[in-house]
Amino acid sequence: MRVLIVHAHPEPASFSGALTSVAVEALEASGHEAVVSDLYAEGFDAVAGRGDFTGAANSAKFHYQAEQAHAAETDSFVAEIAREQERVMAADLLVLQFPLWWGAPPAVLKSWFERVMAYGFAYVDGCRFDTGFFKGRRALISVTTGGTPKRFSDEDVYGPIERVLYPLKRLALEYMGYEVEAPFVSYAVPRISDEERADCLARWRTRVVAAAEAAPSVEIRDPRAALARMGAQAWTRA
Amino acid sequence: MRVLIVHAHPEPASFSGALTSVAVEALEASGHEAVVSDLYAEGFDAVAGRGDFTGAANSAKFHYQAEQAHAAETDSFVAEIAREQERVMAADLLVLQFPLWWGAPPAVLKSWFERVMAYGFAYVDGCRFDTGFFKGRRALISVTTGGTPKRFSDEDVYGPIERVLYPLKRLALEYMGYEVEAPFVSYAVPRISDEERADCLARWRTRVVAAAEAAPSVEIRDPRAALARMGAQAWTRA
Repeated sequence: MRVLIVHAHPEPASFSGALTSVAVEALEASGHEAVVSDLYAEGFDAVAGRGDFTGAANSAKFHYQAEQAHAAETDSFVAEIAREQERVMAADLLVLQFPLWWGAPPAVLKSWFERVMAYGFAYVDGCRFDTGFFKGRRALISVTTGGTPKRFSDEDVYGPIERVLYPLKRLALEYMGYEVEAPFVSYAVPRISDEERADCLARWRTRVVAAAEAAPSVEIRDPRAALARMGAQAWTRA
Repeated sequence: MRVLIVHAHPEPASFSGALTSVAVEALEASGHEAVVSDLYAEGFDAVAGRGDFTGAANSAKFHYQAEQAHAAETDSFVAEIAREQERVMAADLLVLQFPLWWGAPPAVLKSWFERVMAYGFAYVDGCRFDTGFFKGRRALISVTTGGTPKRFSDEDVYGPIERVLYPLKRLALEYMGYEVEAPFVSYAVPRISDEERADCLARWRTRVVAAAEAAPSVEIRDPRAALARMGAQAWTRA
């Protein structure tokens, strides 16, 4: 299967870096294809705006989603967005690898959703959840935390990790039609022993390969076809 | 009271822009002080990293939180971060004004938390929630959505807005000690009539002034004192 790992950590020597390295190694050893979007290393632009488009449909009255719809119809996203969209389209399984900062993914990964998963490319009005563009594809969140499992329990200060990841799972991934697996959580990584780290990496190897095996093969299709059918029209009505 | 509005929307003509304008006007008319951090207009840098510091304690082995602790002790944050920290320290009430994108604040606002609310400035190990640095201060989330109230109900696709805002409220604001009011939600702003918009703005005027009246006056203090007492030590142990 084809796997896209979107990796968002500033330091290659981090535990997040180790998780992505073993994932690539394990996936390739099992005959899968792994592509990594290393957002920090690639200097991915983190602010959605006019700079996302090679042209603007309406510079005077700029509306971000309208510009995205126009760019999807006319192939006028800037190169780094177009490249990420090609990767997304090709991937049977989408893996998000990031540290939990302030209860959420790093800003640069949030920005990846805002800029890459554009209106007209990843969704249009009326094509969401069960009718989402990426229906049939799988997604897997792999997150590292500073807090211990106890802190993320129902009675403790942070609450269960599923509650923390709810907006990302429900309002981003499932919104686009992805089937989202249970998250892989590496708890308290600054506080665990070398043995615990090795064990965690071994579990991740097994898990990510299992996720790739389980992912249905999707036909590489261009979701923009749906925009041509109904999206532009839907936008005009909005 | 002193109010800091952190505003994250790319378009001044947006409904978010209107909400911030009426808030400033209403607060000042009621004798409060309002400062706006307009992150898009100010070109706020959205990627946390080495560029946040005027010097680095340990360039060879860069660790972001360790660098933040060092910068807090040595006053070596870059100017835009230092300016935001001054504003945060001075504010009795913190207002966050943003559109809900992919179930969360825009990346630039996420980045504001990562870069401004730095280790050593906004928290250290052992000073969180009930012992958080900003204990005694109030925070108010004002969010605009594309979805209708029905969509954000318990039975519908997004779930209640409180569930969506949980990570921001609990793992960011309450983590630092803020007392967080119930959110002010402007639902379905692209779909409502001019009358509904006017009504929403009127309710926001009343609400934000009430929040400012209710906020206890905090002594302008430097949370870095706590770092000097225990934070650096705590960091060394980590």
